[in-house]
Amino acid sequence: MSTEFHWSRKDLLGIAELEPEEITAVLDAAESFQEVSARAIKKVPTLRGQTVVNLFFEASTRTRSSFEIAQKRLSADGLNFSVSGSSLTKGESLVDTALTLQAMAPDLIVIRHAYPGAPQMLARRLAAGVINAGDGAHEHPTQALLDALTIRERKGRLDGLKVAIIGDIEHCRVVRSNIHLLTKMGSEVVVAGPRTMMPAAIAKLGVTVSYDLDEAIADADVIMMLRIQLERQSKMLFPSTREYFRLFGLTRARLQAAKDDVIIMHPGPMNRGVEIASDVADGSDSVILEQVSNGVAIRMAVLYLLAGVRQAVA
Amino acid sequence: MSTEFHWSRKDLLGIAELEPEEITAVLDAAESFQEVSARAIKKVPTLRGQTVVNLFFEASTRTRSSFEIAQKRLSADGLNFSVSGSSLTKGESLVDTALTLQAMAPDLIVIRHAYPGAPQMLARRLAAGVINAGDGAHEHPTQALLDALTIRERKGRLDGLKVAIIGDIEHCRVVRSNIHLLTKMGSEVVVAGPRTMMPAAIAKLGVTVSYDLDEAIADADVIMMLRIQLERQSKMLFPSTREYFRLFGLTRARLQAAKDDVIIMHPGPMNRGVEIASDVADGSDSVILEQVSNGVAIRMAVLYLLAGVRQAVA
Amino acid sequence: MSTEFHWSRKDLLGIAELEPEEITAVLDAAESFQEVSARAIKKVPTLRGQTVVNLFFEASTRTRSSFEIAQKRLSADGLNFSVSGSSLTKGESLVDTALTLQAMAPDLIVIRHAYPGAPQMLARRLAAGVINAGDGAHEHPTQALLDALTIRERKGRLDGLKVAIIGDIEHCRVVRSNIHLLTKMGSEVVVAGPRTMMPAAIAKLGVTVSYDLDEAIADADVIMMLRIQLERQSKMLFPSTREYFRLFGLTRARLQAAKDDVIIMHPGPMNRGVEIASDVADGSDSVILEQVSNGVAIRMAVLYLLAGVRQAVA
Repeated sequence: MSTEFHWSRKDLLGIAELEPEEITAVLDAAESFQEVSARAIKKVPTLRGQTVVNLFFEASTRTRSSFEIAQKRLSADGLNFSVSGSSLTKGESLVDTALTLQAMAPDLIVIRHAYPGAPQMLARRLAAGVINAGDGAHEHPTQALLDALTIRERKGRLDGLKVAIIGDIEHCRVVRSNIHLLTKMGSEVVVAGPRTMMPAAIAKLGVTVSYDLDEAIADADVIMMLRIQLERQSKMLFPSTREYFRLFGLTRARLQAAKDDVIIMHPGPMNRGVEIASDVADGSDSVILEQVSNGVAIRMAVLYLLAGVRQAVA
Repeated sequence: MSTEFHWSRKDLLGIAELEPEEITAVLDAAESFQEVSARAIKKVPTLRGQTVVNLFFEASTRTRSSFEIAQKRLSADGLNFSVSGSSLTKGESLVDTALTLQAMAPDLIVIRHAYPGAPQMLARRLAAGVINAGDGAHEHPTQALLDALTIRERKGRLDGLKVAIIGDIEHCRVVRSNIHLLTKMGSEVVVAGPRTMMPAAIAKLGVTVSYDLDEAIADADVIMMLRIQLERQSKMLFPSTREYFRLFGLTRARLQAAKDDVIIMHPGPMNRGVEIASDVADGSDSVILEQVSNGVAIRMAVLYLLAGVRQAVA
Repeated sequence: MSTEFHWSRKDLLGIAELEPEEITAVLDAAESFQEVSARAIKKVPTLRGQTVVNLFFEASTRTRSSFEIAQKRLSADGLNFSVSGSSLTKGESLVDTALTLQAMAPDLIVIRHAYPGAPQMLARRLAAGVINAGDGAHEHPTQALLDALTIRERKGRLDGLKVAIIGDIEHCRVVRSNIHLLTKMGSEVVVAGPRTMMPAAIAKLGVTVSYDLDEAIADADVIMMLRIQLERQSKMLFPSTREYFRLFGLTRARLQAAKDDVIIMHPGPMNRGVEIASDVADGSDSVILEQVSNGVAIRMAVLYLLAGVRQAVA
């Protein structure tokens, strides 16, 4: 199927608008790129002479490093646009910054921004392909895709699985993209977390809502633990990290309720002893580091597919 | 003419010392590089194996990104020297920093510094070619060159034009370089702005001084609007941004006084509604984004010409 | 000898564990790389497609720039991991950060960290080769190696020399690596400085301790001046910079006590007029800028040797 499929989107803005065949196309392309990072010479000339701008308006270790490494392994020319050293501190609007970058003829722009919809706005204005690397708590499509690749590798499929997503459902940037992807591909999603972190409208996305960890992970094939942002603690969303761990922390004992071959995921960075016990994070069910490895392959695949559209147009 | 001309300067420090043929040589070289950024593979091997250090002591979006992209498209190895993470915070002098960098055998050094004359001092001490990317309000030669390229493309010439430069004549880093270049090439320059932003000695540079926008832009072929640094507002150089806009903001109505085929320029980043109305900034007379595109070509040209001098010496 | 020697270490963590033949092997390799930086095209394809992560948790001009330039000249893909923009600010542990980076399949990791032993901890956990670029005041092996290369070039040997190391013996990050290297290679080391900056156990490393500059440099072949960290002045380790200069500052007059062909070294950045007089720093005996040049060659050599071990394993 994927051999016949032709990717035609200029941008990757979210999972919500993707068709299942498009998701499969990215995963298939990523699988073929995994091998590059395993070589002694980790580099292919695929994107030679392509300019990719990394426009990060929020701090990020994993996502940004992952995109940068993907670019280098594809031989693209990556430009890091530093926010603190930027015109935005001089009061320039995001659109003017984007139009300015555009005038320098980049092929692709990777953007992370605190405001939901910022990548969409850029994509409408710019000829360059735009990749959403996280817009607030709205979408973070490459994270959902790397999670899907990890699940597909381990489970052999993305349909008919029970996936439990546990934690700060409201603020975590990866939740919505993962829900869209997993439900589109035919899996069942249960979300669980404290009531203070559960958005009212979440059930409309086709998921089951729970406020109990044990209930949520019962018979789960996949458990995705979300990061608790301790910075938010001042807002009193939960009484204490100890209390949070007691209620929603994943431990080896509680894991018994899940399927025997359950896999444990976390988008990182982890708060060990808050949302996840260290022995679970490092245990044999954990695929947390595979997620990171697959992140590079997914980003290579997305850069490759979008650049192909650009080339076809040019 | 330019085919016979041989560039012989080690450094590009300012427009003041350039001969008209040298200016023309840079513009001609830049024109030939414009095509590279329009290709699918935006890269030529011209500066392969050359080390270029970007030494920015002040924040800059456009200039720095533009130089970095120019370096990548020429296949140079660019090194970004971070000021905040540098020895300068440990009290090392600029000269010692420069000598240290020099010992690492860079071919070219791009420097932005708050102090007028800093690039000149480096150029005298270093074997590497030095490019001034802005030294206080003294010179910013690559900006003047990209402005000139934009004018020449639109008007077909640089002589016999009337160019109005409007705004903060005293503090804006691009003014002096533009005045030097335009008067050398045979154009007439009028500068206008509030008295609090007009340096006493500016008329000595061969320009007409005005304190009235409408008078200054009458029959102009080119209008260059300068950025108002709102940070300076605390110094009470102007009563309010609203008052500034009323007196010196460029609107569609006022534009009637200029020639029919006038072009509107701005070095960016713009304060829309302060020095320029949004419909003028985005209108058909505006060449503001062409300036940005031409910036990459000008920087490629300058890097190329200076590297050629280095190679000839080596 | 070095032609038969095969480098077998995955990591370069310190000089303490190196055999003399290993030190010689690095110096010999570095000598062969010096020529690359003298070429018009300063680039060899040696590490093409290798990913090197620069993980600097403390500010550094020289060391970081030197490693970056070395990577570019070897055609490696360097990734700069920014600390301020990193997950570490979100509370992630160094080990989790390292495991995450590891999952992106880097070949080599260059790390500077305030805590002694941080590179060792990483090296045990990671398949990637780890290069210590300074761990507190513990070791800074590439600095000691570049100092050794500079001495060997000037003196023709590393044995039988008298080397005086003057200044803040306790806190300076280069002292211990230099003592290990020089004593292993057969030189005599004298350390001198104020009592407040002299660690009690230093004599156990096989050096002579002095509290008098003139005594320490008598008949010295090499004088290494250390940087005084003026930031520490608040801790009252010395009464004033003027007083420090009077007691331990190297001047032309005092230099008479050393051998006629003495060479003067400093790891930089220098405090002129505090630990060293300007005319000495810039004088004909000074090899301070040669140290910087040799730094690039040493880092190329270390990257090359460690990458070779990686390749042999793969």
